[in-house]
Amino acid sequence: MTEFERIAKLSRSFGKPRAPAVGIGDDAAVLPSVLPLVVTVDAAIEGVHFDREIIGLEVVAGRAIAAAVSDIAAMGARVDVDGCGLLLSWVLPASVTDAEFDALVEGSAAAAARLGVFIVGGNLSRGQEIGLHTTVLGRCTRGSVLSRAGARAGDAVAVTGTPGAAAIGLRTLMAVEPCEDTGARECVRAWKYPTPRVDEGCALVGRASACVDVSDGLAQDLGHVAKASGVSVVIDTATLPIGDAMRNAARSVGLDPTEAALHGGEDYELVATGPREVFGPRWTVIGTVIAAREEWVYLRGDVEDTALKARGWQHF
Amino acid sequence: MTEFERIAKLSRSFGKPRAPAVGIGDDAAVLPSVLPLVVTVDAAIEGVHFDREIIGLEVVAGRAIAAAVSDIAAMGARVDVDGCGLLLSWVLPASVTDAEFDALVEGSAAAAARLGVFIVGGNLSRGQEIGLHTTVLGRCTRGSVLSRAGARAGDAVAVTGTPGAAAIGLRTLMAVEPCEDTGARECVRAWKYPTPRVDEGCALVGRASACVDVSDGLAQDLGHVAKASGVSVVIDTATLPIGDAMRNAARSVGLDPTEAALHGGEDYELVATGPREVFGPRWTVIGTVIAAREEWVYLRGDVEDTALKARGWQHF
Repeated sequence: MTEFERIAKLSRSFGKPRAPAVGIGDDAAVLPSVLPLVVTVDAAIEGVHFDREIIGLEVVAGRAIAAAVSDIAAMGARVDVDGCGLLLSWVLPASVTDAEFDALVEGSAAAAARLGVFIVGGNLSRGQEIGLHTTVLGRCTRGSVLSRAGARAGDAVAVTGTPGAAAIGLRTLMAVEPCEDTGARECVRAWKYPTPRVDEGCALVGRASACVDVSDGLAQDLGHVAKASGVSVVIDTATLPIGDAMRNAARSVGLDPTEAALHGGEDYELVATGPREVFGPRWTVIGTVIAAREEWVYLRGDVEDTALKARGWQHF
Repeated sequence: MTEFERIAKLSRSFGKPRAPAVGIGDDAAVLPSVLPLVVTVDAAIEGVHFDREIIGLEVVAGRAIAAAVSDIAAMGARVDVDGCGLLLSWVLPASVTDAEFDALVEGSAAAAARLGVFIVGGNLSRGQEIGLHTTVLGRCTRGSVLSRAGARAGDAVAVTGTPGAAAIGLRTLMAVEPCEDTGARECVRAWKYPTPRVDEGCALVGRASACVDVSDGLAQDLGHVAKASGVSVVIDTATLPIGDAMRNAARSVGLDPTEAALHGGEDYELVATGPREVFGPRWTVIGTVIAAREEWVYLRGDVEDTALKARGWQHF
């Protein structure tokens, strides 16, 4: 397919938002606008974030969209409302076949449909490695947003879902003889099809004191909250949400389940701080905010707390 | 510099918009919003759009921003007003030095200041080749936008500036013994520091019938307008804005000036259609819209018009 045939295919494959808008194929997209905009961009790069020999491009494309939308969820904002949308800027090597291009398109369209969001424009470029850059335009629907700054000593620290599951799932996918039991399958699913916690984030606006999504590892991302808020946090590892199935799945691929929960990335769960009573049944309280100490993140100990050095993902 | 040190440097180097906003360093940026949004994304990829051995990264970064803003200008919208901004998603190989990173930052900050726009967020990733993806959030300030569809038979076709100058400038830059006269220097300047035609685009809203920016070559981009509008266009090459200095600069690097004007890309001028009287002194009328013929673009001839096959840039 030529560049223009590929753009035509993208235009046909992605749904159109309900509101009047200029969409894919012009110089820019036009979106009606009332509420404050919440905008972010995220990238998935071949050889860094994925290997197309191992992971199907349909999955890669869907994860790229979910990861980007998760940043909007972490702000307590939405993408599935009028005046919102995604822009996809794709770098495609000459080696990408039409079938691979179709897989990227189908994975994107399926993820957009699953999350109730619309792709309103983008860009195609040639390059040596696949690069999927996803811009998300979301909206504050509740008057304000959740930022990383605002955690106060005495606040509870809580997470959604089961951080660590995605890292265990990825390790399972890479295993020569992957484990097939329920726990392993759930972890693989958590990595392949992450669900941004949009409803959970929005429900905390005006109630929680800070929030971030778990993309680079729970401890490291929580460290960002601590640093931005000028506090420290103590995690009680005994309270981390690790069920038996997840524990077994971790061990079957040689991972310590607690280490996976603390440092495994790509979960796209939320971790937030605030009064304990704001966290409903979809949250697990895993620790406490304390006055600033020497390090940002500590693990609770019987005698004294242990400082945790950041060990999550860093690009440089 | 680590990833987080680089993000801190970006946050310090880019100005902040006047309106209250969450900026660089949180999960997403927040922008106040009243007018309809006009959004686009564009990419500059090493080895495809530039070679960092030949072109300084400061220039590369500035051009990436100008090119992206030009798409908003082509819609008749603005970026230099409240609630607008840019997101930069950069892919940086490990080989990028701190000095090269600084050049990218300084080129971006200088271009943003020159164009009166703000960088509100972005993303950094590792990769094998430099990739600069620029999302632009603009606004309709005049109630509606200019699209590619809408050209009508009988409309005049007009351009801003001197399409072709950038291509001549790039060829001059690549020359072993670059020509140093005024015309050549002006063409180099046109390539290095393109100025998106924001005022010119906005002035046409509600008056011109279609508009596109000249990024891939005048003839090819005009072909997009013809196709989207279901018409053909005839260009009178004798009226193309090619001064003597530009003509000499073209010849000194072995380019035909008319060919450069028709097919050279990266000018970021606008080409628009509409009643002849809507085009003021910053525009040159270069042709006419006619009823659809077999091809989209023709060159006027004494006896008959010649169909022009697209020869501009295509990625695949």
